[in-house]
Amino acid sequence: MSNLDNLDKIVSLAKARGFIFQSSEIYGGLSAVYDYGPLGVELKRNIRNAWWKEMTRRHDNIVGVDAAIFMHPKVWEASGHVGGFNDPMIDDKQSKKRYRADMLIEQHIEKLRKDDKHEEANAIQEKLDTCGSRKSLTEDLHEIIMENEIRAPESGAFDWTEVRQFNLMFKTQFGSTSTEEDGVYLRPETAQGIFVNYKNVMDTSRTTIPFGIAQTGKAFRNEVVARQFVFRMREFEQMEMQYFVKPGTDEEEYEKWLEKRLEWHKKMGIREENLRTAPHPEDKLAHYARAAADIQYKYPIGWQEVEGIHNRTDFDLTQHAEHSGKKLDYYDQKNQERFVPYVIETSVGLDRLTLMVLCDAYREEEVDGDSRTVLKLNPTIAPTQVGIFPLIKKDKLQDLAHKIEEDLREEFSVLYDESGSIGKRYRRQDEAGTPFCVTVDFDGVESEGEDTVTIRYRDDMSQDRVPVSRLAEVIRDGMKDWKPE
Amino acid sequence: MSNLDNLDKIVSLAKARGFIFQSSEIYGGLSAVYDYGPLGVELKRNIRNAWWKEMTRRHDNIVGVDAAIFMHPKVWEASGHVGGFNDPMIDDKQSKKRYRADMLIEQHIEKLRKDDKHEEANAIQEKLDTCGSRKSLTEDLHEIIMENEIRAPESGAFDWTEVRQFNLMFKTQFGSTSTEEDGVYLRPETAQGIFVNYKNVMDTSRTTIPFGIAQTGKAFRNEVVARQFVFRMREFEQMEMQYFVKPGTDEEEYEKWLEKRLEWHKKMGIREENLRTAPHPEDKLAHYARAAADIQYKYPIGWQEVEGIHNRTDFDLTQHAEHSGKKLDYYDQKNQERFVPYVIETSVGLDRLTLMVLCDAYREEEVDGDSRTVLKLNPTIAPTQVGIFPLIKKDKLQDLAHKIEEDLREEFSVLYDESGSIGKRYRRQDEAGTPFCVTVDFDGVESEGEDTVTIRYRDDMSQDRVPVSRLAEVIRDGMKDWKPE
Repeated sequence: MSNLDNLDKIVSLAKARGFIFQSSEIYGGLSAVYDYGPLGVELKRNIRNAWWKEMTRRHDNIVGVDAAIFMHPKVWEASGHVGGFNDPMIDDKQSKKRYRADMLIEQHIEKLRKDDKHEEANAIQEKLDTCGSRKSLTEDLHEIIMENEIRAPESGAFDWTEVRQFNLMFKTQFGSTSTEEDGVYLRPETAQGIFVNYKNVMDTSRTTIPFGIAQTGKAFRNEVVARQFVFRMREFEQMEMQYFVKPGTDEEEYEKWLEKRLEWHKKMGIREENLRTAPHPEDKLAHYARAAADIQYKYPIGWQEVEGIHNRTDFDLTQHAEHSGKKLDYYDQKNQERFVPYVIETSVGLDRLTLMVLCDAYREEEVDGDSRTVLKLNPTIAPTQVGIFPLIKKDKLQDLAHKIEEDLREEFSVLYDESGSIGKRYRRQDEAGTPFCVTVDFDGVESEGEDTVTIRYRDDMSQDRVPVSRLAEVIRDGMKDWKPE
Repeated sequence: MSNLDNLDKIVSLAKARGFIFQSSEIYGGLSAVYDYGPLGVELKRNIRNAWWKEMTRRHDNIVGVDAAIFMHPKVWEASGHVGGFNDPMIDDKQSKKRYRADMLIEQHIEKLRKDDKHEEANAIQEKLDTCGSRKSLTEDLHEIIMENEIRAPESGAFDWTEVRQFNLMFKTQFGSTSTEEDGVYLRPETAQGIFVNYKNVMDTSRTTIPFGIAQTGKAFRNEVVARQFVFRMREFEQMEMQYFVKPGTDEEEYEKWLEKRLEWHKKMGIREENLRTAPHPEDKLAHYARAAADIQYKYPIGWQEVEGIHNRTDFDLTQHAEHSGKKLDYYDQKNQERFVPYVIETSVGLDRLTLMVLCDAYREEEVDGDSRTVLKLNPTIAPTQVGIFPLIKKDKLQDLAHKIEEDLREEFSVLYDESGSIGKRYRRQDEAGTPFCVTVDFDGVESEGEDTVTIRYRDDMSQDRVPVSRLAEVIRDGMKDWKPE
């Protein structure tokens, strides 16, 4: 049972235990950017590696690529990001804060409805719905704000700039020649790195359709209303796979991947009742999509997308073929036909996946009248898998504990800790999500015959005495048998 | 024996076999940026994972972090990058090409010396050495170029702009408030992400000095003379470890890490004769360093740095303490003393490390009058570890081959291939660096008793017949016993 009714508990634990820190915290932080600490980096790495193994090793028709963050500027013209990846923004001159103009108007309409001024609200709504049909979109939005004297939410001022289209891509300049100063973007999604390498992969990998290309990497969006911890950030990591299929088989493949990806999250130990799929209604589909669905998780902030499955049709390859002048079709030798493949995309945010894993593992439990906080993480992705403790600081116990550390650390992620009472050391590892703790005591080293140790299980706090020689095997079995409660 | 006398062979193989492609190649490429293809991404991942395991798991006093690429702008003031990370550049107005002003002058001096005009050369050299002492550095450089009528190397024109300081950091704008438009940099090194998290790690990890913080991640430099394939790129990946030590122990720790890191490269299978260390002379040290050395590899372009070991003293922590107003010292409880730790840094470029691995593994060999190209990669980091081939396309052989694929792929990276002659399949895997190939033939499946297969070793092309049940063990042993030739 989870007691997680708000995000603050996760934010506190993440900071206190070294999972996630605010970026550049000693300088007051950087808005909507986060750093991963010692436990967070291991958790994130393990999740990334699990995804990679699932997508590439377990599918003999999926290969990986790692495209650079910098791409040729024409890529973003072809993809539609230069022209269409904009938000209409307006600045409050007094507070210097920036707002999305359409959202300001929507909030105003909502307020009118609360005050039962439905006629006025309807009139503004109609104007909002037809923005762009009178003058330009930005001018029409500006006019509504002016006519209705909509004020800035924070400062209360009515002192606006014009409405400007604000592209969500970060731009920078290359500079080895003065002509290069046109500007280069930081990629707003990793997908395009796959599309522009489609031909290279086809030419070098001897793959036949259907086949997939997987990639993990950073993407950047100049989000204006970035918030909710690592859920929506300006710098984030995506894990995407584009699956190239024959047109006509795309609907079936789309359904298959939606199912497969949902199953993966369950297999990783996320509780079923906290997962659901949500298809996008047809009138809300992106311009490139024929079908799309979210895999959603019940975050403390509500049901939200953790992963998206999209049928992107032949939109991207066709666009890049047009803009680059290169042929990006596929010749099917068996059936002697030529076509531009359709693409089924699976796209998951690693940061919000990590947040989901933390939220789903978080528990507060009563133990003998006391309470403990514990992260019931899947042992295969836990940052520390085995805590190793000498009961007290005596050579005999420390030596055996260090020997065990040495023996286990090629296979498992281990932590040696000799400070504080055993109870405190267990609690610390509960909060870190460490599934197994091994305690070396005098009963074990002074008994006749083989040395034995106590293994303590995180989830039910049960303990077993096992011979040192069997320890790795016992841990391996414990990992294999693990199920979420 | 390596036949690698130029970089072109590696570039060709890297492209043909899907290790490394030019970025955005279908759009004509992006200068000094590269993408990793299916084999390259696996090789790079394996090297990164090997480094991570070596630095963190095998040292119980080293933890990891993963700081964002975006950092607070003050970080780069404190580190000295805003003020000092510049090159003096000048543009040829005719070709639009940009040059480093000091390098232009040096080339001119060199040419004079070749023509035996030593007096003239000496006079210019003296002026160059005292640049910045008459007017500003940029003005003095400009004056030399003007006075000596130094022409643009490519166009031959004498049509220059002024000399300007050109910062090597890429800059972009954040935009949720108009005041945020001051600019944010893409980090030019990952090290600062460690220093600004030093306090957070101290507070959450219960570490005592000496301890280290390791990190891998992208860094960006607006290199004007970027070239030599992935050796010097505008976007590259660093793997850095900062080791915090007590002042006074720094020299010893510096020597220890230099030795340790050199040993690691050898352990990874780089041939000893191609590695050396090169200490920086005292008058060439960076402003923050007390001692520094390169670990160099004998690349096709000559001996070049693959990794750097630096004694950074307390420079960075002191700077950040001053600029942030936070205390960044350390209290040693045992000896009851307070100090700012010194830092020993190990810094390796993942891309040039990958290039080193490729160069060192590359061989052209004569085999029965024919020649083969083979990458003798360490099996633990090879992109594909096991090739699995049915001798011909018959159900019986294909079924067993697929079963073996299924059995092995949780532990090894495997590739199933049934097309072309066995000889051709072996050659393809030689070029991919696959250390083990398994062929399923009728002798093995039709013999009495247990099924057997042929295992073929990449390095000496020897073959063994082994029972299917022992295959994993044989491969495991082959990996353990591998040595570079």
